Amino acid sequence: MVEEKENVSANGEQVSKKGAKKAAKAAKKAEQKAESAAAASAGNDGEAGDNAVDHAQGRYGLSEMIQSKDKRSERVFVTVPELVNHVDKGLVWVRGRVHTSRAKGKQCFLILRQQSSTIQCILAVNDIISKQMVKFTGNIPKESIIDIQAKPVSVPNKIESCTEQTVELCVEQVFVISQAKPQLPLQIEDASRPENPDDAEGLNIRVNQDTRLDNRVLDLRTPANQAIFRLEAGVCRLFRDILTEKGFTEIHTPKIISAASEGGANVFTVSYFKDSAYLAQSPQLYKQMAIAADFDKVFTVGAVFRAEDSNTHRHLTEFVGLDLEMAFKYHYHEVLHTIGNTFTAIFKGLRDQYSREIEAVGQQYKVEPFKFLEPPLILQFAEGVAMLRGAGVETGDEEDLSTPNEKLLGRLVKAKYDTDFYILDKFPLAIRPFYTMPDPNNPIYSNSYDMFMRGEEILSGAQRIHDPEYLIERAKHHGIDTTKIAAYIESFRYGCPPHAGGGIGMERVVMLYLGLDNIRKTSMFPRDPKRLTP
Amino acid sequence: MVEEKENVSANGEQVSKKGAKKAAKAAKKAEQKAESAAAASAGNDGEAGDNAVDHAQGRYGLSEMIQSKDKRSERVFVTVPELVNHVDKGLVWVRGRVHTSRAKGKQCFLILRQQSSTIQCILAVNDIISKQMVKFTGNIPKESIIDIQAKPVSVPNKIESCTEQTVELCVEQVFVISQAKPQLPLQIEDASRPENPDDAEGLNIRVNQDTRLDNRVLDLRTPANQAIFRLEAGVCRLFRDILTEKGFTEIHTPKIISAASEGGANVFTVSYFKDSAYLAQSPQLYKQMAIAADFDKVFTVGAVFRAEDSNTHRHLTEFVGLDLEMAFKYHYHEVLHTIGNTFTAIFKGLRDQYSREIEAVGQQYKVEPFKFLEPPLILQFAEGVAMLRGAGVETGDEEDLSTPNEKLLGRLVKAKYDTDFYILDKFPLAIRPFYTMPDPNNPIYSNSYDMFMRGEEILSGAQRIHDPEYLIERAKHHGIDTTKIAAYIESFRYGCPPHAGGGIGMERVVMLYLGLDNIRKTSMFPRDPKRLTP
Repeated sequence: MVEEKENVSANGEQVSKKGAKKAAKAAKKAEQKAESAAAASAGNDGEAGDNAVDHAQGRYGLSEMIQSKDKRSERVFVTVPELVNHVDKGLVWVRGRVHTSRAKGKQCFLILRQQSSTIQCILAVNDIISKQMVKFTGNIPKESIIDIQAKPVSVPNKIESCTEQTVELCVEQVFVISQAKPQLPLQIEDASRPENPDDAEGLNIRVNQDTRLDNRVLDLRTPANQAIFRLEAGVCRLFRDILTEKGFTEIHTPKIISAASEGGANVFTVSYFKDSAYLAQSPQLYKQMAIAADFDKVFTVGAVFRAEDSNTHRHLTEFVGLDLEMAFKYHYHEVLHTIGNTFTAIFKGLRDQYSREIEAVGQQYKVEPFKFLEPPLILQFAEGVAMLRGAGVETGDEEDLSTPNEKLLGRLVKAKYDTDFYILDKFPLAIRPFYTMPDPNNPIYSNSYDMFMRGEEILSGAQRIHDPEYLIERAKHHGIDTTKIAAYIESFRYGCPPHAGGGIGMERVVMLYLGLDNIRKTSMFPRDPKRLTP
Repeated sequence: MVEEKENVSANGEQVSKKGAKKAAKAAKKAEQKAESAAAASAGNDGEAGDNAVDHAQGRYGLSEMIQSKDKRSERVFVTVPELVNHVDKGLVWVRGRVHTSRAKGKQCFLILRQQSSTIQCILAVNDIISKQMVKFTGNIPKESIIDIQAKPVSVPNKIESCTEQTVELCVEQVFVISQAKPQLPLQIEDASRPENPDDAEGLNIRVNQDTRLDNRVLDLRTPANQAIFRLEAGVCRLFRDILTEKGFTEIHTPKIISAASEGGANVFTVSYFKDSAYLAQSPQLYKQMAIAADFDKVFTVGAVFRAEDSNTHRHLTEFVGLDLEMAFKYHYHEVLHTIGNTFTAIFKGLRDQYSREIEAVGQQYKVEPFKFLEPPLILQFAEGVAMLRGAGVETGDEEDLSTPNEKLLGRLVKAKYDTDFYILDKFPLAIRPFYTMPDPNNPIYSNSYDMFMRGEEILSGAQRIHDPEYLIERAKHHGIDTTKIAAYIESFRYGCPPHAGGGIGMERVVMLYLGLDNIRKTSMFPRDPKRLTP
């Protein structure tokens, strides 16, 4: 797990010295602001404020809790990116968060944020705006949600600090809809700071990963996180749409199972009424049953559980599996090519439909664009071994790829073929599960494959043995008690077409497509051996 | 749980007398057939068959296991529904299952099935087909997968027993790709038999639900089941596509959680390394956190777990939740209408895109078409109570709807408004969870709603309390220990827009849309207190 070196936190966590001072100061200031805001608001409600007459009374304050008392359907809201089309057309309503707010004398500059979009708002004391209103607005705690009524106007000079650089809002009303605690456990601007900033100020306060995850509701508000999870939704949508287009049917497979699907290791136990059960480590058996049940081509998207005590950058105990299984006529390459083409289509879809999100992530994390070939590169396992040996690595013909070798091979492939995605076909039989179909042409290999993104495995798959007698033979060869997998074997006794498939780790695909360094960045609420919250 | 009265089974289960005799006879015959097939095949391999010379040798037999030895890319396969376009154009290859096969003298009639499509195939002894080949083909066990090469030809009279009624196949080659056990635990024709057949032969052999579920791989091959699960995939696709179109983002929420999300009851416990954890009963907290994290409108499709010991027609311990949550401006009806319109769009999508599947289900189960209004009917809870009272039911103003009252109200609504879908708004506050927003205009009601299909609840939802202090007040009112939900409350402390949402039981929607009588019919591998397999 890679962690940033410095972090800032207002709730007593370890922080860098500079960060700590700054955080404490910010917290103190924020508290004072909140108190003032409340006081100003009280003034607005007709009680004694700090000045006697307030000509802006009724145009600002704390809104009462929205409880659906009335529909106020006359108020039409405009989104921040749409505001550019409303310049000089009169007043509009906008709801957003206070990104920053700063009152200076008779003026208040506020940056309003809506998801990843920001716009500058201005209040200046005049016949509409009072001194009290400016003060109130300057004191609204960051991250509070406000409704403002304002006139969108053009600005002569680009506003570099906002996404909307040509428009600003001249505010006439401002109401707090949901007030944030003045003291935030992390600052959005710290959590959004680029990893390799060009300025060498030395004030690179960053938020460490645990602080982020402990306060995920705040952390997810950064532009990079907003983009990551929108792109992640895109990966799922593209996966499903592409396969549906190819004639696949979506299925749903049970997560609670009576027997550990892939051996007893690494499986979570569930108490099931008076009995116990397990959490499925993969939907494989059920996908195969769907094939035996004539669904021909199926996919499923759902939670997959691994009770592995692995605390690495790429392991989670619960993740989303993008699984598919497909009957074929004569050769599992019919399936291999289908999966390969599906990846190509996903990569193209992301590149073409999510360029804004990719750019937003790139503003925080420095990443090379993802390269792929069309059709995808397919290498034999033996070729991969030869490339590694050519690079001085000693590895056996039937030896699995270690993580360092996997990554090295990824670099060698990138250097030679200029692709971040490739398929490695024909893995040694000895290192694959018992249900993998052996290669009929060479006994040391099997009809199995892995697929890689930036040198890390993101799919593992194979032709499965569809003949029950041969399956028993192979299970016995692996020393497996066939009585324990009787139901699995039984599924193939009533006619089953040859089939192959694979399982994809969704979070890994997003992490590696974007070139991120930790899978916790691509799981909205990650689960690992040490984290079960939030 | 409604069970059919009779069933047939070849593996020793309770069967009706007539069914038992028939089954035993069928099993015996099937075994003999299989033996003969093996013998015939042996003859094909060059050993002594029952006749000396076989001029069809090499054109039939048991294929060796398909292990991807070669690609045979010259063989182009045609699907059964496409065959009508290949009439009188020469030989084609088709892969399918032996639905039935019957050799009679010098002819063999075989019905080939591909998913829900069937076509008649004929072999007659001639200069291509031998007596041995006819016998072999007649003896292939039902449900075996075969490759045939044949000429599609038109037939003068409609073939009533097949879905392809104008074409038949004149077979020239036939190879068994995957041989089924001759003795099937259930017959596809029995499992496919209409529930209310018009003929009064009295031979209504049916398969009971447990036999079906125990042998789900076979049971799922019936035309009704093929249709049900394709339509189910459609429900999910429509739900996602419609919401994506409306600007929702798909999220994924953890299933393993550290604290029981909705109280401690009915929750499954998981052992989590040295600790214990729970299986989420709903994604609600996480959906709400996504709203607080600025995702604005989110949905999630995933497994939901309920440790309820309820053995009814509509309860499962694991089901698929279609959940959504949405920020709104002033009134939760903004969300209510979005959900209502989503249902309307799903119903229209099913009606327009899945008419074939609906028809296929209708051929086995008698069901009235699903009626809905556009826009959907919205009734107040109090109106529902008044309708029930008008029908002579005694029920209190703040009393929840019992299941019989729910169903009765569904019938009353259908009679009055001619709709199978309606929304009941403004449930009494007292019977909803603590996080439900009270109605600001009437203290006995709340901003909450249920939605119903054919008189059964398929969605429950509400405006949630987004103000942390008010949430604490309401939790205390319900006698809830607020320290146990501190993390939940904390999510609302950094600014959260007002929001509402709901959770839909996917299997219930499919069951009730199709008018089926048991939720186990719409869960591919159902889980209930007594069933954890397959």
